[in-house]
Amino acid sequence: MTFYTHPESRSRVVDIMLAELGIDCERVQLEYGTSMKAPEYLAINPFGKVPALVDGEVVIYELAAICAYLADKYADKGLAPALNDPKRGLYYRWLFMVAGPWSMATTDQVLGATPSKEQEGFVGYGNYETALHALISGLSEANPYLCGEQFTAADVFVGSHLMYMLSFQRLEPHPVILRYTDNLKQRPSFQAAFAPNS
Amino acid sequence: MTFYTHPESRSRVVDIMLAELGIDCERVQLEYGTSMKAPEYLAINPFGKVPALVDGEVVIYELAAICAYLADKYADKGLAPALNDPKRGLYYRWLFMVAGPWSMATTDQVLGATPSKEQEGFVGYGNYETALHALISGLSEANPYLCGEQFTAADVFVGSHLMYMLSFQRLEPHPVILRYTDNLKQRPSFQAAFAPNS
Repeated sequence: MTFYTHPESRSRVVDIMLAELGIDCERVQLEYGTSMKAPEYLAINPFGKVPALVDGEVVIYELAAICAYLADKYADKGLAPALNDPKRGLYYRWLFMVAGPWSMATTDQVLGATPSKEQEGFVGYGNYETALHALISGLSEANPYLCGEQFTAADVFVGSHLMYMLSFQRLEPHPVILRYTDNLKQRPSFQAAFAPNS
Repeated sequence: MTFYTHPESRSRVVDIMLAELGIDCERVQLEYGTSMKAPEYLAINPFGKVPALVDGEVVIYELAAICAYLADKYADKGLAPALNDPKRGLYYRWLFMVAGPWSMATTDQVLGATPSKEQEGFVGYGNYETALHALISGLSEANPYLCGEQFTAADVFVGSHLMYMLSFQRLEPHPVILRYTDNLKQRPSFQAAFAPNS
């Protein structure tokens, strides 16, 4: 596997996955605005961003996809609920909720795009308050992790996303969010990825 | 399992999954603006929309999550690449690309929110043209399905999404897109879900 990365990017989340799995792979560091937008790399990831992972013939981009893929490829490490475990549904719900409506809601907030009452019906997240409520009410049941006792790739993706947003002051430090991120900060993989100047 | 649905909604995509798996489950039809926004249902899906699926104690919402969950729960039906198949990475890439950046790009287009050059750097999809190019270039390799010969839950989610967008004139009928959706329209499950007045 080849992992396209940059230390100051969400690629750090893939480092958490690799650390939790106890594996490593070839790394190619790309630079913003130059090699990340070069034709050779755009042929791999047309969005021109990192991370991307190439496994043999297969190109995987989108951070949540990489996390879910690695968890499945090394299924024996237990970073995803088993295929026949109903918790697998909760696992996917969290991955897609944060990759989809939650990211959309927070992006639109930064863009200053507020759906009108009429638009709320077809915008996946409704409105920001609804998405925030879904996040908080879901996290209130995380004990200590999203799927309960089992730490999963959903915690890697969702937890690091929340920690980035908190660090950029793009999210109010609600006690329920902090309780959850505090659980994650006890893991060496998160400590390494979020260490200052690392 | 209990499936919360409405015939005029994306819940029809879950019907495609159920038909492809050859299974059925208890259905509860909710109504827009009333039972879909009632406290009892908001306790299940805080976004107050359908579909949602309840399997025992576990609540699953987000359409892509439901598709991925059902494919895994009935893994013997082959609607997802095996855990150790690199194509599983391609499968997740499609699910998360369409649930994430592509949906974000098309939503922002309808909201009239265009990221500035500076904002493109942190908006997950960059700009609409980039997202459309990623979609088209990915689909140009779908032969006949996203993961090759194997029809998967990613085709159910992505294909139906594209068919909805085409039917609402929210997507240009690019030949590469039509070639792909034509492949899907040959399947009885898609014919039933997209039949007029069904």
